Amino acid sequence: MNQAAMFKLTYGLFVLTAKDGEKDNGCIINTAMQVTAEPNRIIIVVNKQNYTHDMIMKTKEFNVSMIDTEADFELFKHFGFQSGRDVDKMADFAFSRAANGITYPDNMVNGYISGKVISETDLGSHTMFLADVTDAEILSDAESVTYTYYHKNIKPAPQPVKKKGWICKICGYVYEGEELPADFICPICKHPASDFEPIQ
Amino acid sequence: MNQAAMFKLTYGLFVLTAKDGEKDNGCIINTAMQVTAEPNRIIIVVNKQNYTHDMIMKTKEFNVSMIDTEADFELFKHFGFQSGRDVDKMADFAFSRAANGITYPDNMVNGYISGKVISETDLGSHTMFLADVTDAEILSDAESVTYTYYHKNIKPAPQPVKKKGWICKICGYVYEGEELPADFICPICKHPASDFEPIQ
Repeated sequence: MNQAAMFKLTYGLFVLTAKDGEKDNGCIINTAMQVTAEPNRIIIVVNKQNYTHDMIMKTKEFNVSMIDTEADFELFKHFGFQSGRDVDKMADFAFSRAANGITYPDNMVNGYISGKVISETDLGSHTMFLADVTDAEILSDAESVTYTYYHKNIKPAPQPVKKKGWICKICGYVYEGEELPADFICPICKHPASDFEPIQ
Repeated sequence: MNQAAMFKLTYGLFVLTAKDGEKDNGCIINTAMQVTAEPNRIIIVVNKQNYTHDMIMKTKEFNVSMIDTEADFELFKHFGFQSGRDVDKMADFAFSRAANGITYPDNMVNGYISGKVISETDLGSHTMFLADVTDAEILSDAESVTYTYYHKNIKPAPQPVKKKGWICKICGYVYEGEELPADFICPICKHPASDFEPIQ
């Protein structure tokens, strides 16, 4: 088996947002797709380590916004490289609210889809949410990015770093710390601790 | 709601193949993705009208091959515009067999993934299969196509046609016949009868 064949599957990249009471939050996912047209339903797959995951488990609602080719690496750092448990990701970010009251980015996404969860499937490290599409709007004419486009055009080339930590060999995500937890899963590309190497 | 926002979701395109006894078959899908890395599992979503769907329901095994940029429209016609109930799609087609005995195309795909079904979820018009990845191989360096790439570069521009039938406004699939069944769903893009118009 050649595990690298898995990278030939084509994905988009999305900002997934949720709202629990006064708390807004969001994360990056690469797993969202329409599964039936009538009724109009989508699935999203979310890593359980994401705070947004827990919010959706509780509130059953979300927006998924399609990242476009005008996005820069800052968007991925903002939503992907920090946790809503520690920071308010919306405090210094330009956003609007959809009919469901949940945020979506004003820039760098070409549309959003609002989902109302029908069912959850426990997949171990991730949960799959099946949802009715309750709203959808186009925000720009820019093309949606693919995961391949992100790797070629958005992700910075690796730089020499002095920090102590571990780097994901797959996507370049950096975990800062002496020891990488054995059950750590990359929040960007979902690969496990075995795909990380110490920063030299 | 702007339904067109659903097209901003990024998809790949795949040849999905199955084998039931001596019968080989395949169809085109745009819905396959990895959902967890450990264990390595994928989901595929398949229209119930596809013969390949029924074969996988029975045998619980499949290959999903990633269509690449060297593919031409003939591949889509071959696997997408005719049914394995009527023709032997593999009779005049170059293929090999994976370890599971199931076929995969020799050309126009850059790799394949073999799946063994763990569970099925009934989504109405479609079934979602969750599967363990049992094998995966890379076949070429060509880039995987996106659904957007297919529309821009592979799908022929509409031609004047004399046939009686209905054309899918979304993807250009042609249904030949006087009457389009009310419950018809486009085998390529999954859109319903309401998205077809009579050929003039």
